[in-house]
Amino acid sequence: MFESAEIGHSISKADWKARVPALREALLDAQYDLKQKPDFPVLILIHGFDAAGRGETLNLVNEWLDPRLIHTVAFDAPNDEARARPWMWRYWRELPPKGRLGIYFGSYYSDTLFNRSEDEIDSAELDKQIADILRFERMLSNDGALILKFWFHLSKDAQKSRLKALEKDPKTAWRVTEKDWKHYALYDKLRKHAAHMLRLTNTAFAPWAVIDGTDHNYRSLAVGEAILAAMRARLDLPHPFLPRSDSPSLPQPIDHKLLLDTLVLDQELDKAAYKNALDALQGRLNRLTRDARFAGHSLVLVFEGNDAAGKGGCIRRITQALDARRYRVMPVAAPSDEERAQPWLWRFWRHVPGKGHTAIFDRSWYGRVLVERVEGFCGSEHWMRAYYEINDFEHQLVADGAIVLKFWLATSAEEQLARFQAREETGFKRFKITDEDWRNRERWDDYKLAVCDMIDRTSTTRVPWTLVEANNKHYARIKVLKTVCDALEARLDADAN
Amino acid sequence: MFESAEIGHSISKADWKARVPALREALLDAQYDLKQKPDFPVLILIHGFDAAGRGETLNLVNEWLDPRLIHTVAFDAPNDEARARPWMWRYWRELPPKGRLGIYFGSYYSDTLFNRSEDEIDSAELDKQIADILRFERMLSNDGALILKFWFHLSKDAQKSRLKALEKDPKTAWRVTEKDWKHYALYDKLRKHAAHMLRLTNTAFAPWAVIDGTDHNYRSLAVGEAILAAMRARLDLPHPFLPRSDSPSLPQPIDHKLLLDTLVLDQELDKAAYKNALDALQGRLNRLTRDARFAGHSLVLVFEGNDAAGKGGCIRRITQALDARRYRVMPVAAPSDEERAQPWLWRFWRHVPGKGHTAIFDRSWYGRVLVERVEGFCGSEHWMRAYYEINDFEHQLVADGAIVLKFWLATSAEEQLARFQAREETGFKRFKITDEDWRNRERWDDYKLAVCDMIDRTSTTRVPWTLVEANNKHYARIKVLKTVCDALEARLDADAN
Repeated sequence: MFESAEIGHSISKADWKARVPALREALLDAQYDLKQKPDFPVLILIHGFDAAGRGETLNLVNEWLDPRLIHTVAFDAPNDEARARPWMWRYWRELPPKGRLGIYFGSYYSDTLFNRSEDEIDSAELDKQIADILRFERMLSNDGALILKFWFHLSKDAQKSRLKALEKDPKTAWRVTEKDWKHYALYDKLRKHAAHMLRLTNTAFAPWAVIDGTDHNYRSLAVGEAILAAMRARLDLPHPFLPRSDSPSLPQPIDHKLLLDTLVLDQELDKAAYKNALDALQGRLNRLTRDARFAGHSLVLVFEGNDAAGKGGCIRRITQALDARRYRVMPVAAPSDEERAQPWLWRFWRHVPGKGHTAIFDRSWYGRVLVERVEGFCGSEHWMRAYYEINDFEHQLVADGAIVLKFWLATSAEEQLARFQAREETGFKRFKITDEDWRNRERWDDYKLAVCDMIDRTSTTRVPWTLVEANNKHYARIKVLKTVCDALEARLDADAN
Repeated sequence: MFESAEIGHSISKADWKARVPALREALLDAQYDLKQKPDFPVLILIHGFDAAGRGETLNLVNEWLDPRLIHTVAFDAPNDEARARPWMWRYWRELPPKGRLGIYFGSYYSDTLFNRSEDEIDSAELDKQIADILRFERMLSNDGALILKFWFHLSKDAQKSRLKALEKDPKTAWRVTEKDWKHYALYDKLRKHAAHMLRLTNTAFAPWAVIDGTDHNYRSLAVGEAILAAMRARLDLPHPFLPRSDSPSLPQPIDHKLLLDTLVLDQELDKAAYKNALDALQGRLNRLTRDARFAGHSLVLVFEGNDAAGKGGCIRRITQALDARRYRVMPVAAPSDEERAQPWLWRFWRHVPGKGHTAIFDRSWYGRVLVERVEGFCGSEHWMRAYYEINDFEHQLVADGAIVLKFWLATSAEEQLARFQAREETGFKRFKITDEDWRNRERWDDYKLAVCDMIDRTSTTRVPWTLVEANNKHYARIKVLKTVCDALEARLDADAN
């Protein structure tokens, strides 16, 4: 990866003076074009060896461009909020919105590289993290992000000379810290693992640019022109950017036999049995979430279902058993403008619970493959890849210790009609029924197909969907509570072994 | 405070059944009226003794109203992000937006009450925290928030009986934890300090409702009807809510002699002296921010000034000396919709730096008393109280260890004109000049008056404004850097003594 960066590069002062003014002007034009038409964000990652000019280049970019439209983030060690969540969480949190540039000074690549070089992770874990990175960048890129990754390179000798020179001059001595020398001692390892990491993450949608860091003029102009070229190419596309828009359609069962049709929606449970079971299960759930072993996990519950299927009632029976300081219920409605300026999963990443906590989603990220698909709010080039992105998201949660359970509450069309009518008749239930609910009913079959696809494509042993026969509310609540308790207990017991 | 809550209250089953349906319907109407016209948020605080029905009431409110429009937060011990900031920070963070209900299950009152009852703070600190709370609630209320505070009361005997009864029944035994008995042992202290705290925080704009917690029907109906009455009263106001709208106008110097006129804007500094001073000061600033003692502080720098006064250039000279992982530059532009739904200072509280970090604001909360005042974006009933709110905000920062410095960069009208013209002529500086800048110039005198009022009313020894003569950019940068270094050094040295 570093061969061409070690053959010596420089730009003369005259050349620099001739090229910079036009470059600055073009960069500003690009930045303002992007601001005017905020279709995508630009994410710039700055990496490389100490003393290779990363900091100076960062300053220069902020000087050449309008810094008020740049979101610069330099990542320090994760704080306890970040440590209690999947490692990518803090990078999600700082993504630049559409229409803006974001600069990550150090990033997930630094975590991975330094942990490996200091032997805190082995090569298997390194490759796992590289896979996490690749999925993250692919997701961003499919969502439209322009991703530019720079590696500022120096040979070992050049790094040493540069550190010494900086140290010698009293005006710049403060720029060299103990950490720089510590990193210098690690040079060979860093180089080896960086080469591996860069190679494996050098994708078409997010390629690395390795920049020779020895000459100020060369590296500055190289970065500036690379940013300009990439922005300009995207801005000047004659059509709106789309990831592949040739998704094939999903095959459907040729015998028209659908999973949801196999459910026996009417189930028996008398009131006395319900009350007893409810008390017992709420007690059990409370004890499980107060169990010391739960402190290493979190619980993520997703509720989807037909309108009027009883999601709210199920959720209340669960929260009654939980410590109010340890759970949040997230009703999912229309995104805010801050959320709309981010990749679609961003607003759910925002609410990922920390260890020892429970997050309950009343509707969820599955809206992407349900209402957004059925109503055509997003094209198939978006919802088709949502299955993969959702599985990736949930995988990251589970890998970090979360217990993720998803419930589809199913009622029959007749039961739904009866409930709609009852709601319209009862004053204090009126708010639960809207014109939209009636409209959705008309598309019952389209939704059914979407639900079956969703379950098939996103249900796994570790992150299962539970289909809940919900014509009888009492039965549904008990089934949900019992599923939660069983899964929680199984996971905590698995810890012990 | 608790007398009337101990005389015995109950509501019969028949009465309950007769009143609840109409109450639910009216509550939902109020909630939907608020959603339709999101003029204000409703903040409901739930406090009181354990086993007095707080949790049940929380559940009931979530059942009676549409829970998707309620933001419920139960506060646990603060995490490290919160501990690194003023104690009110985490309550700011969770405020409900306009148009929604927020329920704080426990709040700043719990911090104060338990810390005092467990003798972790003395009565002087208790009164200081009560003062913080009063200012916070007054600010929210002036901003339009409807604040409802409930104290669920039980006598000591009643608490004991209720805990025993819950424990005896195997179905409810799990509801009683060790912590409940620990709090029971503290009853007398909690009661004494709560009475003090409630009395001192019982204001006209945020009164306490003390509710007898013994009878389920009584306490539920009491809370429900109190919420309804308060919401309805506000919703049915015949005119938009305003805090006092009778602010007198600010007196102006009758001799027309203004503070800004006393500055000698043209200052000398040759290029060589500038370069030397810059290197020395950047080195000094770097050392100061890496000083171990700085880990207990944070640095907040505010830049305001005439258009084209050189704020960006000053900021860059500072950030060049800082560790990129330890600072953020916050360019202040128009608020997002999430920000507009919150009290005006919320978007600045969002960016309060943690200990060891620096936050640099390129324009700031002072926009409230500058552009918003001059351009009439908000009425005098808002900007007149902003001085007080700003001073309170900065006071909280400083009390928590922050070093807060504010710079006004002043140029003459002639110098500004020259810079505007130069910017229009230089391609890559064009972005720095807009029509708005030309318009602002026409209101030069209005701005001058606003600036002088701002400085007079918000400059103190601990949070001073520094007026920077900025016709000479080099001079201005050095003055700013030196001021920052001197203030930082003085504060760190003060720690040692």
